[in-house]
Amino acid sequence: MNDTAGIETLIELMARLPGLGPRSARRAVLALLKKRGQLMAPLAQAMAEVALTAKDCVICGNIGTAEICPICADPARATGEICVVEDVADLWAMERGQAFKGRYHVLGGTLSALDAIGPDELGIPRLLARVTDEAVREVILALNATVDGQTTAHYLAETLAPTGVQITSLAQGVPIGGELNYLDDGTISAALRARKRF
Amino acid sequence: MNDTAGIETLIELMARLPGLGPRSARRAVLALLKKRGQLMAPLAQAMAEVALTAKDCVICGNIGTAEICPICADPARATGEICVVEDVADLWAMERGQAFKGRYHVLGGTLSALDAIGPDELGIPRLLARVTDEAVREVILALNATVDGQTTAHYLAETLAPTGVQITSLAQGVPIGGELNYLDDGTISAALRARKRF
Repeated sequence: MNDTAGIETLIELMARLPGLGPRSARRAVLALLKKRGQLMAPLAQAMAEVALTAKDCVICGNIGTAEICPICADPARATGEICVVEDVADLWAMERGQAFKGRYHVLGGTLSALDAIGPDELGIPRLLARVTDEAVREVILALNATVDGQTTAHYLAETLAPTGVQITSLAQGVPIGGELNYLDDGTISAALRARKRF
Repeated sequence: MNDTAGIETLIELMARLPGLGPRSARRAVLALLKKRGQLMAPLAQAMAEVALTAKDCVICGNIGTAEICPICADPARATGEICVVEDVADLWAMERGQAFKGRYHVLGGTLSALDAIGPDELGIPRLLARVTDEAVREVILALNATVDGQTTAHYLAETLAPTGVQITSLAQGVPIGGELNYLDDGTISAALRARKRF
């Protein structure tokens, strides 16, 4: 090969990113090589900085640059509501929705007997402690509508029941802009069962 | 937003890579954040290293880590043949084919009156000088089979003609493994015109 070892290594590392394979990683690295000054150097620096400073929030598990993430540190966010999500990506998605003004709890996955992921791995004892310590009124289960997500949601509901906290979950139904014709049968029947007076 | 400024900057920079948009850049950055030690730090380092060391070869325009790229510096590569390609990506593609044992000349684009890219921007005077200086017998035009690529190829053929060097171009025809049914009409007629005795 003509490209030297360093470039090869860079391509291999880039190919490990989700959404990039060996071919698209090579394409991305070539684009970087052509914009060494404007793009490659700043990107490398930004990445090194984030790699050094990024921390998991000790309270909710969100990723920030401090021990406590901006959401947990924000006094304007309601402390009485905790939204439980599987993943930091889900937390970011919720934040983009701009509808939730409480705090979060990131599980970091779902219960899975096969992968030996139990309640301790997901920080569920920590969630229980938070519910008591932070005088939480409502826990919103915003887990993915998958089998694993819903299994974990049921487990959480059972585990949280003795604390007396109100447990809710996201509504299921037709997405905004959705066409019935393209929806799966499960969504249509869930939307029908949860129908509301017009 | 919950993600802090550094992470936002990183996502914006990643989104400028070809093949990544804002969404997939966010996904890639999240994957990086989850593998800070194993992936993010080494990737940042590899990128910074390449950004510092990568250089355009002063002879052929290939990207390497020295003034003269490994191909131009390799005494085993034939000096009498120059393969002209549009882009470093094309050079890498040719090298993967492992069929060419000569040297290259990377134009860095195609002639374009609209974008004010003339012969000087493509290093065509430098190519002419090389043909004389390196006692080149054959110039292989391996430009893309696009309108711009072929226009540039015709210009090159005209410009190189006075030097008396042999000018060839890649064959056009049915790709290996190609099915006639899926080929465009232009390729089929080119393959028919260039048919060979079986």
